Amino acid sequence: MVTGLEPIRLGIIGGGPGSFIGEAHRVAARMDGRFRIIAGVVSSDSERSVRLGPAVGIPVNRAYPDVQTMLRSEGCRPDGIQAVAILSPNDTHHRFAVDVLRAGCHVLCEKPLANSLEDGQSIARAARQAGRIVALAHVYSGYPVVRQARAMVRDGDLGIIRLVQVEYVHGGAADESVPDDPKGPRGWKFIPGRIGPSQVLGDIGTHAHHLLRFVSGLEVDQVRADIGSIVPGRRIFDYAGVLMRLENGARGYLWTTRAAAGIENDLMIRLSGTRGSLEWRQESPQRLDFRPLDRPAELRTQGGPGTHGDSARLLRYRAGHPEGFLEALANIYAGFADAVAGRAARSLPTAEDGIEGLRFIDACLESNRHDGRWTFIGRK
Amino acid sequence: MVTGLEPIRLGIIGGGPGSFIGEAHRVAARMDGRFRIIAGVVSSDSERSVRLGPAVGIPVNRAYPDVQTMLRSEGCRPDGIQAVAILSPNDTHHRFAVDVLRAGCHVLCEKPLANSLEDGQSIARAARQAGRIVALAHVYSGYPVVRQARAMVRDGDLGIIRLVQVEYVHGGAADESVPDDPKGPRGWKFIPGRIGPSQVLGDIGTHAHHLLRFVSGLEVDQVRADIGSIVPGRRIFDYAGVLMRLENGARGYLWTTRAAAGIENDLMIRLSGTRGSLEWRQESPQRLDFRPLDRPAELRTQGGPGTHGDSARLLRYRAGHPEGFLEALANIYAGFADAVAGRAARSLPTAEDGIEGLRFIDACLESNRHDGRWTFIGRK
Amino acid sequence: MVTGLEPIRLGIIGGGPGSFIGEAHRVAARMDGRFRIIAGVVSSDSERSVRLGPAVGIPVNRAYPDVQTMLRSEGCRPDGIQAVAILSPNDTHHRFAVDVLRAGCHVLCEKPLANSLEDGQSIARAARQAGRIVALAHVYSGYPVVRQARAMVRDGDLGIIRLVQVEYVHGGAADESVPDDPKGPRGWKFIPGRIGPSQVLGDIGTHAHHLLRFVSGLEVDQVRADIGSIVPGRRIFDYAGVLMRLENGARGYLWTTRAAAGIENDLMIRLSGTRGSLEWRQESPQRLDFRPLDRPAELRTQGGPGTHGDSARLLRYRAGHPEGFLEALANIYAGFADAVAGRAARSLPTAEDGIEGLRFIDACLESNRHDGRWTFIGRK
Amino acid sequence: MVTGLEPIRLGIIGGGPGSFIGEAHRVAARMDGRFRIIAGVVSSDSERSVRLGPAVGIPVNRAYPDVQTMLRSEGCRPDGIQAVAILSPNDTHHRFAVDVLRAGCHVLCEKPLANSLEDGQSIARAARQAGRIVALAHVYSGYPVVRQARAMVRDGDLGIIRLVQVEYVHGGAADESVPDDPKGPRGWKFIPGRIGPSQVLGDIGTHAHHLLRFVSGLEVDQVRADIGSIVPGRRIFDYAGVLMRLENGARGYLWTTRAAAGIENDLMIRLSGTRGSLEWRQESPQRLDFRPLDRPAELRTQGGPGTHGDSARLLRYRAGHPEGFLEALANIYAGFADAVAGRAARSLPTAEDGIEGLRFIDACLESNRHDGRWTFIGRK
Repeated sequence: MVTGLEPIRLGIIGGGPGSFIGEAHRVAARMDGRFRIIAGVVSSDSERSVRLGPAVGIPVNRAYPDVQTMLRSEGCRPDGIQAVAILSPNDTHHRFAVDVLRAGCHVLCEKPLANSLEDGQSIARAARQAGRIVALAHVYSGYPVVRQARAMVRDGDLGIIRLVQVEYVHGGAADESVPDDPKGPRGWKFIPGRIGPSQVLGDIGTHAHHLLRFVSGLEVDQVRADIGSIVPGRRIFDYAGVLMRLENGARGYLWTTRAAAGIENDLMIRLSGTRGSLEWRQESPQRLDFRPLDRPAELRTQGGPGTHGDSARLLRYRAGHPEGFLEALANIYAGFADAVAGRAARSLPTAEDGIEGLRFIDACLESNRHDGRWTFIGRK
Repeated sequence: MVTGLEPIRLGIIGGGPGSFIGEAHRVAARMDGRFRIIAGVVSSDSERSVRLGPAVGIPVNRAYPDVQTMLRSEGCRPDGIQAVAILSPNDTHHRFAVDVLRAGCHVLCEKPLANSLEDGQSIARAARQAGRIVALAHVYSGYPVVRQARAMVRDGDLGIIRLVQVEYVHGGAADESVPDDPKGPRGWKFIPGRIGPSQVLGDIGTHAHHLLRFVSGLEVDQVRADIGSIVPGRRIFDYAGVLMRLENGARGYLWTTRAAAGIENDLMIRLSGTRGSLEWRQESPQRLDFRPLDRPAELRTQGGPGTHGDSARLLRYRAGHPEGFLEALANIYAGFADAVAGRAARSLPTAEDGIEGLRFIDACLESNRHDGRWTFIGRK
Repeated sequence: MVTGLEPIRLGIIGGGPGSFIGEAHRVAARMDGRFRIIAGVVSSDSERSVRLGPAVGIPVNRAYPDVQTMLRSEGCRPDGIQAVAILSPNDTHHRFAVDVLRAGCHVLCEKPLANSLEDGQSIARAARQAGRIVALAHVYSGYPVVRQARAMVRDGDLGIIRLVQVEYVHGGAADESVPDDPKGPRGWKFIPGRIGPSQVLGDIGTHAHHLLRFVSGLEVDQVRADIGSIVPGRRIFDYAGVLMRLENGARGYLWTTRAAAGIENDLMIRLSGTRGSLEWRQESPQRLDFRPLDRPAELRTQGGPGTHGDSARLLRYRAGHPEGFLEALANIYAGFADAVAGRAARSLPTAEDGIEGLRFIDACLESNRHDGRWTFIGRK
Repeated sequence: MVTGLEPIRLGIIGGGPGSFIGEAHRVAARMDGRFRIIAGVVSSDSERSVRLGPAVGIPVNRAYPDVQTMLRSEGCRPDGIQAVAILSPNDTHHRFAVDVLRAGCHVLCEKPLANSLEDGQSIARAARQAGRIVALAHVYSGYPVVRQARAMVRDGDLGIIRLVQVEYVHGGAADESVPDDPKGPRGWKFIPGRIGPSQVLGDIGTHAHHLLRFVSGLEVDQVRADIGSIVPGRRIFDYAGVLMRLENGARGYLWTTRAAAGIENDLMIRLSGTRGSLEWRQESPQRLDFRPLDRPAELRTQGGPGTHGDSARLLRYRAGHPEGFLEALANIYAGFADAVAGRAARSLPTAEDGIEGLRFIDACLESNRHDGRWTFIGRK
């Protein structure tokens, strides 16, 4: 959606050639014409960063060797970057985000926000001090049908939420003949110090946790968790099962794994309330199953009859024309652009959401260390 | 499948007019012509039992006032009953089963086998002493596609099982305007002393537990459970979430509830092993999703290409002609008839399966009482 | 559903050991306890008929060598047959049906009613003269969800029907390495004089035609047809495409084939009216997709909310417990039993439906002979 | 996919503010960074075109009053447009395309190519004379899974194609309370002289026809058609049913309508060959059902195991991350960009495809005028 505003000038950190997530962010940023990617540090190796930046569309003289150089150089230009997308490994999020914010730019950060609650809180503090936005790439909350689910819950279509089920089942680490190789591509994902303490929870489980909060409007209060490596020889945790109590007393579970052979990217949420149940699965994202208590089940479609304004305004085309993962990410970017422009963007995942995600992970890890006892999520 | 054998003469306990489960058992028993229902005690009220028996097809003079009378009278006839289907409330299973076995008849019992592990073991003992069969109506294991899943696991199509997910989500107790009424129809289901200590677990969760064992061939070793009533004012437990460790180290969860508004009868199993994942849902029972590690996903259909003999021999018609819940129950009856006739029936759920189910429930209850700690399932 | 009435005494013609359709009819007849199969002629070979009858449950002394003998012998007994199920090859339907009716028995006949319109009309005449019932085994109209669709159309949920789509796509004759073998099992199906002039239309297309009439309540008025053999060397027609105009002006098509490799039994109907569209597929028979003009799409389930009484009263169990093909056939039997007992059975397919089916086939064949011109279905 | 090449400078004709198709093209053109939209004529009203161009992102001084002015002005600039996307009403395609080509620019044209075969051929001639590309926006052929289907057919996975089914069922004109209003928004769609002789066939049926050719690799040889207006008072044809014979003897049908109440955008193709059947539906575009003759059915997923290179190279992200309608259109744009750059783009729909579509429509209209007789598609 072209808005009449000038595109926001965006820098990127990470996401060099061959990076899936890098390409996804570039497509999403371009899609609606609200950003122009004009600078970047696409590798932690200075020489590669300068050399390979242009291969992903960074203008030659603005492919920088490191983040500090980018921030300093761009800061001196009248047409310098206004915002930065941070796509680098998890352990760098904190450092780069704080630097970017202090340089006066807005941040759009891949999840998890940081590798510790303290670091996450430090980012939020830096944002407040700088008066800048931090958006978090919880892409699945950008699907129009997920916004529809959120609106239906908020409007009371489900009544009081009683039971919640969230799953993120993935097969990326299922092939046991492929060892965790810290020296291979994306090898940092196999180094606990870099991917963070939670691993499967930080990598994908946090999406499920955010989806639950986003759609239900409820916080998790207590958890009982079982976390570990089911595949022999894995260096990092590859599954987590969590029983949950929500702030309103609802019960539920979160189940996540990257070791489910043959499964692609099966993120699922089902909520049951006093008036009905809702179910959404990411692999067929255009449909939402709504089962009211005592009326026929409904199949809500992307943009179809009954679509709430919060969902409809995300659509780039009409009902029956599927939008997908990249449009969902573009919707996050659109919310970020709105926020940067000073407009309300109440559905945009922010640093506060990232902090809540880190609190959840901490509580799960603590429960897991104590034989799975109920563990409260500390929250002020 | 007519077998050339005389039909087995069957008596029934419970399942009077208006009972869904009674009608289901009668249809299933009739379907293949291997049973004739010739006697019964269809109510705990003697007068009603005698009066209403004929309304469900019991010959007038063989509708008895109580179980003792039936067993004694039938025992004196050359054409007396050979087997009894026990469809009465849970708390009566133990007493009636033992009586029937001591009278020399075989038993097909609704689940749960009994309301305590001790009672379940007592039934098994009585069966051994009498040299009679006890079959348990774990109907879902009778679906041809469930047998296919079991065969595929046994043949190694999934490799080593690593992760298991079982759910039984039901909406029968979701309407919060309908109180648990111990005096209403099936009111015994709201009396803890009658439905048993586990309630949602004994009523439907036990089906999920058995399905997991039946398909995976694995026993559950340890559990962490959260069990309770999510609907305010419920007299009985209406949800249970259980994290599990299986005997081979696999991890998983079992989730069950009767309070999911709008959901009908969503029993689901998904297993992931080193070579692939399998998923089956009861509400579309003719299909089995098989996702091998590195080949295209397969949709196995009831009787379709690749059907294992264990599944194919259950079919009454060809691929593309759905069989349903009643055929699944009829397959349990067919296995029972085979067992009574002295033939191998290795897929028939028995008293031993019932005992394993009671052990699982006991361990879940114990874990729940101790803040959800890991609790071993005692097994000799 | 036991009714308190004595079971109807049933004879069968055809359906010997190994016959799928024979087994299906026996299961369906037994399922609700309203029939007892007590006599039969299970082969056209007298010796085999007498010898093999008991193998499918016919009492030894009532397995007859031929139809005339059965009718004569049973006619002399006070406990003789009251009705006959005709499961023999198409070319025998007319002869046997007329004989059975003249002997004073009711008839339940497999489709097609006969191999010519004249023969079909002769059967109907014989039924009127004898005052006996002729039911036609259009099994798919026995599915509870198909009855629901019919009720919704009748109640105006779709408004005026504008467009109709019916397909019956099957793969039974797709394997081109398997020749049509008139001497093999069910070899009569490859002899045009026995299977009839229409072949794919009489074998399966007639089910689609009946389903359309049954659900829509509309007759077909004109057709343009393309009929032929797509597989080289087939002796019989294996596909038919028909454009249709219905009596109210609605347009549509019927597509049927037995040469669709890998497809099992995909019978489908979709109707679009001024107020919405309905779709049902036989391979997932428990669901009905209803898409109203301007409200969210609905997924109607077997026995779920919004179920019409005409559908609900067929159910043997509750919502969420799939009933299948055999229950659908049992529902045809139940309607037949009602009709024999003198009760209203307005959804029962009868000889009149069979005649309408033969008229449709005749018109399609005539159109096909004349370069596909619009051809009226003659109807008085 | 950034390619290291400079983006192609694109002008647009049509697609002003509020135009769905305009927004879709702009998103698709932007998505991969291979085009920059720098000029346009977004309305047939000169004043509006100049005024509203900037609202959809056209630079202020390059929003032209008419096509001639744009072509002349841009032709004088060193940084002038290299290609033009024609999104204006059908009756203008011929005129604008010829003008654009003569001005030396490449053309990407919405379907149908033109309103008559002669006009279509004239466009192709102009392209040959100018040595320029004409691409046709048959967007559905841009879906990765459609490319997969095409590759599987070409590789022989289906064997010899015997039967084809294509449907495009849409509900856009189903609401009978909304009259065809030539003066309302997109009113030209209700003026036969502007939308063209075929209407429903040119508007959506041509997509189904192209999809059939694209996936099967076969041309249609003969048709029998029934075309008309099913909704009373419609000014234009709203349904078409076509029986088809393909060049290799395969049979099939094409069914299309815009009057199916409640249906969104249900484009479907099913092909059956000697070795199996394939089915794809646009509303769940990430899956492809493959049913081999005698092996288990397969569910091929976008980017999943077994993905052909022709499909895989279109993906912007990994398996399990749905791409949708806009990505499909972006894939057409990418193919157009490749062709403009002189690279092979053999899957790109071109003027020749458009001409074949017009021949099909002509033959259908002729058959319809002659009582539906078989009509050959003239082809040199």
